Order: sequence, then structure tokens, then C-alpha cells
Amino acid sequence: MTKYAIGVDFGTESGRAVLVDVADGSIVATEVYQYANGVIDEKLPGTGIRLEPDWALQDPNDYLETFKRTIPAVMQTSGVDPADVIGIGIDFTACTVLPTKADGTPLCFLPEWRDHPHAWVKLWKHHAAQPEANKLNAIARERGEDWLDRYGGKISSEWFFPKVWQTLDEAPEVYAAADRFIEAADWVIWQLTGVETRNNCTAGYKGIWSKEHGFPPKAFLKALDPRLENVVDEKMSRDIKFLGEKAGGLTEEAAAWTGLKPGTAVAVANVDAHVSVPAATVTEAGRMVIIMGTSNCHMVLGKEEHVVPGMCGYVEDGIIPGFFGYEAGQSCVGDHFAWFIENCVPAAYVQAAAARGISIHELLEEKAAAQNVGEHGLLALDWWNGNRSVLVDVDLTGLLIGQTLATKPEDIYRALIEATAYGTRMIVETFAANGVPVDEIVATGGLPDRNKLLMQIYADVTGREVKIAAATQTPALGSAMFGAVAAGKAAGGYNTIQEASAAMARLRDEKYAPIPANTAAYDKLYAEYVILHDYFGRGANDVMKRLKTMRAEVRKG
Amino acid sequence: MTKYAIGVDFGTESGRAVLVDVADGSIVATEVYQYANGVIDEKLPGTGIRLEPDWALQDPNDYLETFKRTIPAVMQTSGVDPADVIGIGIDFTACTVLPTKADGTPLCFLPEWRDHPHAWVKLWKHHAAQPEANKLNAIARERGEDWLDRYGGKISSEWFFPKVWQTLDEAPEVYAAADRFIEAADWVIWQLTGVETRNNCTAGYKGIWSKEHGFPPKAFLKALDPRLENVVDEKMSRDIKFLGEKAGGLTEEAAAWTGLKPGTAVAVANVDAHVSVPAATVTEAGRMVIIMGTSNCHMVLGKEEHVVPGMCGYVEDGIIPGFFGYEAGQSCVGDHFAWFIENCVPAAYVQAAAARGISIHELLEEKAAAQNVGEHGLLALDWWNGNRSVLVDVDLTGLLIGQTLATKPEDIYRALIEATAYGTRMIVETFAANGVPVDEIVATGGLPDRNKLLMQIYADVTGREVKIAAATQTPALGSAMFGAVAAGKAAGGYNTIQEASAAMARLRDEKYAPIPANTAAYDKLYAEYVILHDYFGRGANDVMKRLKTMRAEVRKG
Repeated sequence: MTKYAIGVDFGTESGRAVLVDVADGSIVATEVYQYANGVIDEKLPGTGIRLEPDWALQDPNDYLETFKRTIPAVMQTSGVDPADVIGIGIDFTACTVLPTKADGTPLCFLPEWRDHPHAWVKLWKHHAAQPEANKLNAIARERGEDWLDRYGGKISSEWFFPKVWQTLDEAPEVYAAADRFIEAADWVIWQLTGVETRNNCTAGYKGIWSKEHGFPPKAFLKALDPRLENVVDEKMSRDIKFLGEKAGGLTEEAAAWTGLKPGTAVAVANVDAHVSVPAATVTEAGRMVIIMGTSNCHMVLGKEEHVVPGMCGYVEDGIIPGFFGYEAGQSCVGDHFAWFIENCVPAAYVQAAAARGISIHELLEEKAAAQNVGEHGLLALDWWNGNRSVLVDVDLTGLLIGQTLATKPEDIYRALIEATAYGTRMIVETFAANGVPVDEIVATGGLPDRNKLLMQIYADVTGREVKIAAATQTPALGSAMFGAVAAGKAAGGYNTIQEASAAMARLRDEKYAPIPANTAAYDKLYAEYVILHDYFGRGANDVMKRLKTMRAEVRKG
Repeated sequence: MTKYAIGVDFGTESGRAVLVDVADGSIVATEVYQYANGVIDEKLPGTGIRLEPDWALQDPNDYLETFKRTIPAVMQTSGVDPADVIGIGIDFTACTVLPTKADGTPLCFLPEWRDHPHAWVKLWKHHAAQPEANKLNAIARERGEDWLDRYGGKISSEWFFPKVWQTLDEAPEVYAAADRFIEAADWVIWQLTGVETRNNCTAGYKGIWSKEHGFPPKAFLKALDPRLENVVDEKMSRDIKFLGEKAGGLTEEAAAWTGLKPGTAVAVANVDAHVSVPAATVTEAGRMVIIMGTSNCHMVLGKEEHVVPGMCGYVEDGIIPGFFGYEAGQSCVGDHFAWFIENCVPAAYVQAAAARGISIHELLEEKAAAQNVGEHGLLALDWWNGNRSVLVDVDLTGLLIGQTLATKPEDIYRALIEATAYGTRMIVETFAANGVPVDEIVATGGLPDRNKLLMQIYADVTGREVKIAAATQTPALGSAMFGAVAAGKAAGGYNTIQEASAAMARLRDEKYAPIPANTAAYDKLYAEYVILHDYFGRGANDVMKRLKTMRAEVRKG
């Protein structure tokens, strides 16, 4: 009897459910729900209340609607019997966090708090907690907090404590009214199961928690603000569940929303990037998964604990049980190309692409692919949106060097692709040099589908074979895999995520091997990249920061 | 009785005659002749003979046609009596050089040489003599030739000796058949007067000649190639005439071509850039004339002799008698903007400009002008076509730094304008630091007409007032002024170019004073420019050259 699992992937603009055959991971049905309130960054829904520029909120009702609309839809499309759906898993953007009452009701659902921005969900890309992040980092450095090393030396303003602290700073009344601050990932599991759980992945990567050391000490939290001293015990939980565990069974109410059976196994929540790793066939050390989209997220497993400079973080059991899960990132990848298309492509190219019925990306890729390595004479630093790994510096900016009067748009386009590949090589080599080897790359996300040239360049630049995850919806597949693990083998699922991955995840036949002549040429260009990277990124010439400061001052007037 | 002078300006694509009122310099009539054979850079006219990529030739017959077509036309348009035309002057691109027989007949007019590329005029931008220029510079440095200092340490491949040497290297039979190698400037004067003269301006700036030292010593020329030892005496002339002198009177034949009176005074030939200086009202030290177009040419007078690092050259009496005439240059100015318009402006901007009936330059200028200094956060090095002054390095390339995802096309456009202004400030300050002060700038050429923002930025960046020459055809006016001087005061002209300039040259009312707040902001940005200029331009990081070398090697295959 065929068994199925459901994975629900909560993205930035929409939620997506997939119904998956547990035997081989094939996706039987898919449904997407576009969030009614999307990203809330101008004004609060149903009010005239304007948000500050760096704000980004969401409406938790959109998460519930995702369940209510997508799961019944995939059930109906597929005609699968609810009794054959053995488990559900979810993944979420992170750190996406909200304040709730003790029973899980979001503060923003309550009339008395609905008009208060701090009562809503703070989305991962809410950047208004930068002042708190800056203070937190300064205090942590001053106190010599050793957990800083686990996060490349810097806590992001996107993460849990800066966001909670911002609420306390700016809206102590909201902070006081909140019985809980919880990741939206864990909140939706709470809604499905009626049980409050906290997953070790968001706790580890976004909440400064580790299996060995727990949360930061109270003395540190008190040093931030005396009112935060007991925030963990008052508003959070020290009871952390691990990826691969079952959070609970579907409640009657959630069964009614979804059309599934009450008691269906629900997995502990996960993060979109991290859940993609086993869905990309990786459950062992040495094979890096890169999720390539507007930005790049690099995930690699290691048997041992190592501090790698400039990574985003590492968490024991944070991706796959039994491994340290290492994460690094490039803040700007596809965004470079989108910027270029938007701002730098001449009308003649747009017309030429239209005349041939191809996209401008395709036209540029075709022209750029006709070049040999080094032929355009350009080099770029991929810092249009700062640098996460390995420099951890949001104030760095872009650079393009080597232009002549013969430089063409496709030259710059190719140079930007190459720059992001050099950035990835810097990360790969930094991992390798610090005890976390990377022998192979598995790519997933939106870019590998769209740009073969980019894949070949990544292989040539890193000198590593680049393979591609077969699933087009890797996070949702990964969530379904964890759903099958939550159900367990006895119910027709799997006992471990390794077993689930072996059965349900696949690579494409298509793969990209480094071309030795290209790799040799790129070795030379990468050496030039490293010189510029270090000169502009490590303090020899802070011109980027001075220009950015001047720009900010001029704009303030 | 009103007296007139005629100035003929021989440009790259066309020749232009102006008929000028000697009393006040007002232009009475203008006529342009588009050269029938233009720039010959693909194949020899009337043949299937292909030229190598770096070649650029002209047809001397186009120069004669210029006289025959334009001068009769301005006479007819104006209705002026030929008896009232007291003098003619000409200016030419340089170094533009041709081989002739002893009677002045260009070799390329002779059937036996017509199919030989080396028999034609080598235009200023013929760049195929680079190997000879490289050898010449190496030998000069090795021998410690002190005249190298007069040319910023490097002789350009565009200049006289590399071009002649290339002919000897590649076509010794043409070299042997040539009785003369002569600047086209001097050749056209020869055609008008029947007298072979050589002007001190091209001899000084392009022919390594000086009033004090003459041409380079025979030992040096012999070191280049034994066959060149006596090139000056065999193929050139040591009899150099000075700017402001009369070369001769119009021959009967030339009078018939032009419709002027035989014996009309003809001035010694001049160069387009240099003749513009008095036409821009400058006949004294301290006021720099910048001819702004695809490239910038900077001319300034000094009472004393100084070696200024990186200048193009200085020549005693080379611009105005009684002064050392200093020249510097930026290889790429308007060409940056043209490159940007061609390659980097998105379709939406083109449409927006079209919808408003303005040019894309105007649209970009409007958007860029709305910004405050430093607001775009960018900085560029203006080296898309190498750097002439002060680094004298054709292998440098462009740089743009500070890009973010918010960077707009107008930001880059403004940054490119600013970069050329920083390049000019570098030249101005290098002159000032080496004993050649620059108190004020007078702009002429195509750019000042078209871009008020650029003018204001030059004023703000250099901290100097920028004025604009009134004449739109400054070189032709300057030539007419020298024609009036050749005629002399007794004939209704002037005894000196200073007198002619005072009477005939004018500035516009429009002028650009530095805005102190902008200058203060630009001081900071210029300091950043200098750091990058020196880092990439003075050997700390030769990445531009390595990229360019790699590019050349890859293209060769």
C-alpha cells in the first residue's frame, strides 16, 4: 500500500504544500497559497499605521490559511486516502518570530494589540533591530562570550534576541503582554499539534542555543537589559526538541482544517535551508549543499566541532543528527544579476532578446557563455549587498575593475557570475582550511535551473564537481521526508532522516565537472580576487565604508 | 574697411574653413568638407588591400579638396572681396605624417606607390607603431636621453619617429623612395605657398625637437636603426619656423583653388589643440585651457622651464611665443559617457527620454544633477582607455567601486563624470606642485556646450573657476587669428598673437564658480581617488595589467 507524507514550506511570499510518495520521494501533488498580507512593510493591514523603512512583518493568519487551503487541495488533486498520509513536516523562513499568549494566540490576533506593529510576526528580513544587534555584539565581545565564535563572531540583526530586544526597547507593553516569543516555525507546529515545541535548528542557528551549552548565561542577558535576565524562562523554553523527532499528532481541529486524520504524525519544525540538505541527498560530511537564489546559503556537515571564521553558525545535530551542521552565506547572488538586468542592460539587448523570443537572461548567458575564461578582462567583488561569509561585514559594497571602451554588457554579466563563484570558493576554502572538508557541491534553489553557465563556472572556479538536486521544491520535499521520519518505519515511514534521504532524495543526471583548463585560468583570477578581497575587506583600505558613511550622511541631509 | 582672415581646421573626419572679421573675431561664414576617404582603417581606397587592426590612414587629396571646396564657399556665402582677406592660417591633427617626393608630391599620389599602405598619410590615431615606440623608449631610457623628461618619460606610438621607423621597418622601399617625411600640417602649407616649412609646434610636441637642443642626437637615432642616423638631414629639415611667423604667400595655383588673391599671407602651420589656446583668450601663464571632447587636452603656459611628471610634453614657444607651452592629457573623457550610453543604459530610460523628447544624455544629466555630492556612494577611476597624465600608462583600465543593489544608472553616470574631474584635478595639482601654477580653467571643445553639470563638477572638484571660450569653432578661429598675425598690422592684422587674441577671442558670460560646500565634499572624495589612483596606478597592485595581459592572451588563443 503506497504511503504518503506532506511537506509544507513557508516562504517569504507564499506557503507551499507537496504530497509525496514515501517510497521514492516522487511529488504527487503541489499547491501554493499566496499570503493575503504578503510581506507587510508599508502599513499594518486594515489600518493607516505606517511602518519604518527597515520593518518587515507577516500575518500569522496567512500561515493557518496555508494549511487550510493547500493540504485539502493536494488531497483532492491526488485523490489520496487521508489514511495513507502518515506524516507531516514543515519548514519555515528563519528567524521569523512572534509574540503570543500562553495558549499560543498571537498578540496581533487580539483586538487590543492588533494596531501595534510589535504585536505582529517579525519576518526574517525585518532589519530594524540593527541597533540592538550592534549593542548585543559589542557587549558579547566585551564580556568575551565564547559562543560568539560559533557564529563567525557576529550575531545578525535578523536573529532572535535582537528582534525580541527591539520589542522590549520600543514597546515594553507588548513585551510584557507576551507570554511567549516563538519562532513561527514552532508556532505552526503548535497550531497543528496543540503542543508547544521548540526545534533545535532555529534555536541553534538563530537563538544562540547549543546542545552542550544551552542559551547564553543570564548574566549576559542581564547585561543587555536587566529585564531580559530571565527572558528564556519567562518567554521561551529550555525544552528543545531535535530534528527528526515527532512533535505530536494532528489535533481534531487541525484535522478538520486539512482533511487529514487526527493523530497524523507531525515532525518537529525545521528551517527551509537546513531541511533542503537531506532533500539534496546529503546526510554525510564532505558534500556541501548550496541553496542558490537571490542569496547563497552554504550547508556542510562535519563529524567534529571546528570554529570556521566568518561562517553564519554551526549547530550540533542542527541539520542531520550526529553531525555538526555548518552554515555560511553570501548575501547577494541572484540579486546581482537582477540588479544588472534592471539597471544596466541596453535597449538594443532587450530588443534582440524579444525578437528571438528569449529572456534577457538567456541572451546574456548565451553571449557570456561564448567567451573563454579571462577574455573579458574584468574582475568584480560580489559585495553589492555586503559580505556575510567570510568577512561578516554588511558595510562592504561592490567593485568592478578592468573596464575598457570595448567592455560589453555580457562581459560585466559574466564577471558578476564569476565574482559570486569566487565568493563561494572563498567559503569552501575557508571551511577546508579549518577542518571541514568540502569534496563536492550539490546545488539547489532557483538558479541551477535557470543558468547552466553559472553552474559550470562554479565547478570551474571551485575545482569541485557540482551536482544538482532533482527536486524542484527541495525544502517541501525535505519537510515531507521529516514527516515520514516522524511517522516512523512501523507506520510505513523511516526511522532516520538518513534512511528517508536514501530512499526519497535524488540528484539529476545533469552534473558539472570542472574543466581543467578553465580551473587553471580561474586559479589565476581567483588569486587576484583574493588580493582585492583582502585589501578592501580586511581594513587595508576602508574606502567602501567611508563612501557608504558619506552617502548616508548626505541622504540624511 | 573691414578686413578678414581665414582659418582652416583639419579634423579627423572633415576639414572646416571659417571666415573671420579681424577686428573682433566674429565668424562671418563657415563651411565644412567631409573627407571623401575619411579615416582609412579597413582597406586602401580603390583596392582590395586590407589594413591591420591598429592602422589609420588618410588621403592627402582630401586636404586639397578641403581648400578647394570650403574657401570658395565661405567667400561666396559672405560676399567678401578677396582683396579684404589678409591672411590664412591652418591647424591640423597631429602627429599626422606622410612621405613625399622632394617636390612635395605624396608618394600615394604616384601610381607605383598607390597600392602601398605605407605610402599614405598615417593619421594621429594610427597605433601600429607601438613596437617601434616601445623600442624607442627602452633605448632612450637605457641611454639616459635627457629629452625624455620633456615628454613625461615616454614617447607615444602616435608620434613622428615611431611612425617613420615603422615605415622603415616594414617597408624599407617606401622609406627609400620618400625624399621627405612631413607633418600633414606643414604639407598643406607647402601646397598653399610652394614653400616647404616646418612648424615648431609639431616639431616640438611630436618630433622630439626643442629650440634649445634641436632633434635627438644622431647617435641615438643610429642606436634605433643605423639607417635612421641621418633621417633628419635626409628626410626632414632642421629649419624650423615659429608659430606667429608667415610661411609665405599664396601661389597662383592655390589662389585659383581658393578664389583668394595670390600672395595672401599664409601662417606657419599649427596643431588643433594648441591653436585653441589664444582663441580661448589665453596668452599668459596661470590659466589652463582644457579642450574637452572624447578625450581632454590640457594646455597651460609658463614663464619658466619645469619638468612636470606625466605631462605629454612642453615646448618653448610651442603655443605662444615667449612661454613654455605645457601639455597634458586624459585619454578618455567623453568616451566614458559614450561607452556608458551605448552599453549601460536600460530600455526604460531610453523610453523615458524619448517620451519627453530629450536626449538620454539630458535625462541622465537631469537625474544626476539632482543629487548632492557623495549621495551615490560611488567612486571611479577614469581609465577606460588607459591613463596619459600623470601616469603615462596605456595598460591601466577602469574601476568602479561602491555599488549596492540601490545603485542607479544616473549614479554611475555621475561617478564617471566625477572621475574625469578627479583626473583633471590630479593634472592641475601636479602642474602646480612642479612650478606651473593653474589659477583658472578655460574650457572649450564639444563637452562644455552639452553638459552644464560636468562644468560645475569640474569647478567644484578642482576648486577653480571654469570659464568657457565663446567660439564654438575654437581651432578654426585660432587659425584665422594666426592668419591675421601672418599678415601683420600694416596689412590690417596684428603684430603678435597676444594682440590678435585680445581683439578676436572672447569668453562666454556663463561661468562656473566652485561651490564651497561641494568643494569640501569633493576634497574627501578626491582623497579616496588618490589612494586608489596610486594603489592601482603606481605598482602596488598591477591587477589591471595582469587582467589585460590575460585578456590579450586568451583572445590570441
